[in-house]
Amino acid sequence: MKYIDKLEKTSKKNNSLLCIGLDSDYHKLPRFLLDNRYPQFAFNKAIIDATYDLVAAYKPNSAFYEVQGEHGILQLKMTCEYIRAKYRFIPVILDAKRGDIGESNDRYDRFAFEYLGVDAITLHPYLGSEALEPFLKHADKMCYILCRTSNAGAGEFQDLKTGNIPLYQVVAKHISDSWNKNKNCGLVVGATYAREIKIVRKLAPSLQLLIPGVGAQGGDLKKAVQYAMDKSGEGFVINASRSIIFASNDEDFAKRAREEALKLRDQINYFRKGGK
Amino acid sequence: MKYIDKLEKTSKKNNSLLCIGLDSDYHKLPRFLLDNRYPQFAFNKAIIDATYDLVAAYKPNSAFYEVQGEHGILQLKMTCEYIRAKYRFIPVILDAKRGDIGESNDRYDRFAFEYLGVDAITLHPYLGSEALEPFLKHADKMCYILCRTSNAGAGEFQDLKTGNIPLYQVVAKHISDSWNKNKNCGLVVGATYAREIKIVRKLAPSLQLLIPGVGAQGGDLKKAVQYAMDKSGEGFVINASRSIIFASNDEDFAKRAREEALKLRDQINYFRKGGK
Repeated sequence: MKYIDKLEKTSKKNNSLLCIGLDSDYHKLPRFLLDNRYPQFAFNKAIIDATYDLVAAYKPNSAFYEVQGEHGILQLKMTCEYIRAKYRFIPVILDAKRGDIGESNDRYDRFAFEYLGVDAITLHPYLGSEALEPFLKHADKMCYILCRTSNAGAGEFQDLKTGNIPLYQVVAKHISDSWNKNKNCGLVVGATYAREIKIVRKLAPSLQLLIPGVGAQGGDLKKAVQYAMDKSGEGFVINASRSIIFASNDEDFAKRAREEALKLRDQINYFRKGGK
Repeated sequence: MKYIDKLEKTSKKNNSLLCIGLDSDYHKLPRFLLDNRYPQFAFNKAIIDATYDLVAAYKPNSAFYEVQGEHGILQLKMTCEYIRAKYRFIPVILDAKRGDIGESNDRYDRFAFEYLGVDAITLHPYLGSEALEPFLKHADKMCYILCRTSNAGAGEFQDLKTGNIPLYQVVAKHISDSWNKNKNCGLVVGATYAREIKIVRKLAPSLQLLIPGVGAQGGDLKKAVQYAMDKSGEGFVINASRSIIFASNDEDFAKRAREEALKLRDQINYFRKGGK
């Protein structure tokens, strides 16, 4: 099933535009899990089983598995397989921020979509659409391209004026106007830059937005939601990672993650409906 | 030992500015290696043992190991460890083209510099220096930032005029002027854009350049070398991957790789000395 169809089905069923980021840092896991042969997977499994009816998507961040070496990569795969096997309509976004020339992208593409079997990936725009063709050719997947990132120093290049408009806006417009032939492009825009979300939504009225930066990074949820909505009141997911998955570091971590996920899902919905 | 000291020592000893790219695609390996439990490692080991006295550096491309999943990651690690153990002064550049926010970059950093133990990494500039700080803080490593990539469509964003100058030049200048406090920044500039190498060298007179795109991609070696040289006639490495490592697909693959490496090393030196 296409990413976009999975996303629609799951977000309707769960009444949710919440994406939970599985940034499952080994060193932040509850200590009692560390005896497990696959502690990152055991942690993810518990989080997923506790939140599957509250999410629109899951987003494992590749960095936190790679740092554990081949054993981390295996647990990333186990996590993706677990979601696919048990919760088959929940889409999985691999947050990998890849971007190379075509020959290498073909391999990154197969890592994401064949080995891991995910439904979407995050990508860098810098090499242009010609280089990203191995990803862009999959009409059933989603390519979330970095547009305006959530970090404090994002503006160093992203705000550079090209002609009269900042680079991140050129990226948004290019992708909306000419990369999206297969209707499989989305944009990453940080909630820490609410004003920029509003501008990006105007430039790219029909693209899916992936919005990190609420929770631990402190973005403004209300503005992020209200600016990110497309005409149908959807067209985006809000990602939170640490504020949900590490809400507790104790036996109750999954229960506490569920409470935080429920709260955030409901806040997103409240703001979608015009709540102040 | 610092990357830059390893590079100097090895390039002097081997009279070489050649970097061999270990893009060791499983599906292109000689068939008789496929029975090996670690075919990518076995292949790399043979290539390295046949060329160690001809190179300035090796550059494994992460994509070709990731696509093989956890078993590929392990072989990437085995390759890096093998070079470090047997040829301790040959620097290893991880071609990973990473770039995320700080928290995630910290994990990618540890994947590269602790788990794999490499000496340098390739990075995307899009998120700015604040995000790349986990990499930039290592004065003993090298951060090769993508500036002008070798692919045909590189200009889509990289040639956008910001003020009066194209984005890739702004990137070169920013990195040269303000990112290089620890003298550990370099730039990736494709040999397929010789004119751009000349401009980048002017903007960044003392930065190390990593130049892919000769060999299979067809860049102009003579111009690349002559434009890339700093005042001392050095300051760069030329990377070739497929044209060397896959010169033969038979029992003689390592011998043929050595012949191609020798030829290219000598061509680079010929052009360094003003050869036409």
